Amino acid sequence: MWLRLGDGTSRRDDRYGLGVVVGCDVADLPFVRACRGLPSERVPVWFMRQAGRSLPEYRALRGEGSMLDTIARPDVATEITLQPVRRYGVDAAILYSDIVVPTHAIGFGVDIVPGVGPVVEHPFREARDLARLRPLDPEADTPYVLETVRNLVAELQVPLIAFAGAPFTMASYLVEGGPSRTHALTKSLMYGDPVLWAALLERLADLAIASITSQLDAGASAFQLFDSWAGALAPHDYERFVLPASRRVFAEVADHRADAPGIHFGVGTGELLELLAQAGADVVGVDWRVHLDDARARLGPGVAVQGNLDPAAVLAPPPVVAERVADVLDRNAGRPGHIFNLGHGVLPETDPEVLAQVVEQVHGYRPIP
Amino acid sequence: MWLRLGDGTSRRDDRYGLGVVVGCDVADLPFVRACRGLPSERVPVWFMRQAGRSLPEYRALRGEGSMLDTIARPDVATEITLQPVRRYGVDAAILYSDIVVPTHAIGFGVDIVPGVGPVVEHPFREARDLARLRPLDPEADTPYVLETVRNLVAELQVPLIAFAGAPFTMASYLVEGGPSRTHALTKSLMYGDPVLWAALLERLADLAIASITSQLDAGASAFQLFDSWAGALAPHDYERFVLPASRRVFAEVADHRADAPGIHFGVGTGELLELLAQAGADVVGVDWRVHLDDARARLGPGVAVQGNLDPAAVLAPPPVVAERVADVLDRNAGRPGHIFNLGHGVLPETDPEVLAQVVEQVHGYRPIP
Repeated sequence: MWLRLGDGTSRRDDRYGLGVVVGCDVADLPFVRACRGLPSERVPVWFMRQAGRSLPEYRALRGEGSMLDTIARPDVATEITLQPVRRYGVDAAILYSDIVVPTHAIGFGVDIVPGVGPVVEHPFREARDLARLRPLDPEADTPYVLETVRNLVAELQVPLIAFAGAPFTMASYLVEGGPSRTHALTKSLMYGDPVLWAALLERLADLAIASITSQLDAGASAFQLFDSWAGALAPHDYERFVLPASRRVFAEVADHRADAPGIHFGVGTGELLELLAQAGADVVGVDWRVHLDDARARLGPGVAVQGNLDPAAVLAPPPVVAERVADVLDRNAGRPGHIFNLGHGVLPETDPEVLAQVVEQVHGYRPIP
Repeated sequence: MWLRLGDGTSRRDDRYGLGVVVGCDVADLPFVRACRGLPSERVPVWFMRQAGRSLPEYRALRGEGSMLDTIARPDVATEITLQPVRRYGVDAAILYSDIVVPTHAIGFGVDIVPGVGPVVEHPFREARDLARLRPLDPEADTPYVLETVRNLVAELQVPLIAFAGAPFTMASYLVEGGPSRTHALTKSLMYGDPVLWAALLERLADLAIASITSQLDAGASAFQLFDSWAGALAPHDYERFVLPASRRVFAEVADHRADAPGIHFGVGTGELLELLAQAGADVVGVDWRVHLDDARARLGPGVAVQGNLDPAAVLAPPPVVAERVADVLDRNAGRPGHIFNLGHGVLPETDPEVLAQVVEQVHGYRPIP
């Protein structure tokens, strides 16, 4: 079985055969076709946080310690990325990494605390903190990420999704010093010092661009920009204070690698869907709060959708899960340009067997040919 | 200055005069008129959590200890409720209490932990836990609440808003055992055991009904049902699993006291606005994520709106705050049936001087006569 990869090379690998056609291009695979709004033989599916805490093989492999240390070990990060691909037969792999990796790598002082999330030792508070956000030199600062990507591209028969944190979500972590329910400090800075805010977002856009393009150069086939907390913003605030920086990320990545589709993701973004698309995304992530048919209506043609099963729905008994999966598929009504996913990351308490059933059900669904 | 109150009596009180017309009925005051969609001489304004942590006079008065102990002291709770009315000249008072008071009072075992929120010692997990949710006898279980309401009605010249937690939001606290980002256990119960779920929500609806009607009987003029976390639900889940119980709350309160308008509040409920209105609310709370003109368009005529300044926006410099307040007012374009408020509770770090400016600005705005 031969696969031509994003970097133009071809290779043979039968380990994770998923029925890939001989000589096929990544661009012909269901995930990439769906990103482009093109029909394919099945609805592609992957899960945010498919690699991680819900998998016993992950917990056995990773042990204790900071997640950042695990991410810095390409052999382990490669294996963790492959685990869910192997187990579920999903249509895409997503690099085992974290959105804080670039800021950590340039020495901003951020760690990932189990049960808490990213924690910043000295939060971003004033103009002189900008100097702490120097440009990322991916080969020097995050060589382990690129090595993991190269390992994966040599192993995988499905596309690898690169990713980075979007400027707003990264700003929230850096300004708040950790996860926040209100984003009060972040919004205070945004409203109170729009010049400094814009400078901060530009730096964070630069980090995202450098990180994503380096992952694509190393062989990833698509990317996702995680603006997980954008849904905390009013649409006019998003448009004024955030959209310009995120738009630049999509534009510069597209200039660099036009063939790599970009997914724009956030939670609670029902009011922002059109703006998330306007940023330049090929695919907009939709969470469970908006039905896919409504999301389609708001987005119009030309934009694919990703989602949107409630991550808590897979905690239900199997017949209920099956009903919910069918509902998501039915709402999209088989239209091309749908990537099945959860509306947010896999919850730690999720039973992997249930996710395996979800994949089987999605793959058994016949979209409009 | 004479004021006829919700209970039909009249009395004279000049302490918190707010320009109330001699002999005026509560129903003629801007807040109640706006709840009814009627025009008035100004846009009424109050703030969720206007009584509380952001006020130095509150912090000085309350000291340490559980908030539940403070709520149980009618003299202190009365004073705390009055503090923001005195300071800001807002158009409504909201009882200083908490949504967990009824469940606490019937002995379910819940406390409010500073910096955390409600914490339940033994969360709701199975059918036998229903027995722990006995009916509320307001005069016996929460006499202090009713004494506070009676004190307030004797003091206030603006309407007093009664309130209770909505069945879903209360269920989330009781099932999760505290605040939750994902509501995973709650949704697991909802999807996995819809019969037990419905029974739980019926008990919680009974508690809300008993609590609200007792506050209205004691003299409150309006009520707000706090379904703060309803926005975590997909619309079809809200409709199927939550709406029936919340609808019963509005229906039974209306049967009991048709003249007391009801406000239905939640955060991140852009997709649920119509359903929140369908529950029977006179007023639907709108958070900052949805512009008021969009909310109006979704709700149609016959429903008033409350909101919708981002609570973080008042942390901005005064000129920016003024611009944001003007934007909220302009989006409603002076239409009757708008109660100005924040989109969620006042943040603890809010400067009371800024809220005073907001009230002045809102009161200076001239709606369509």
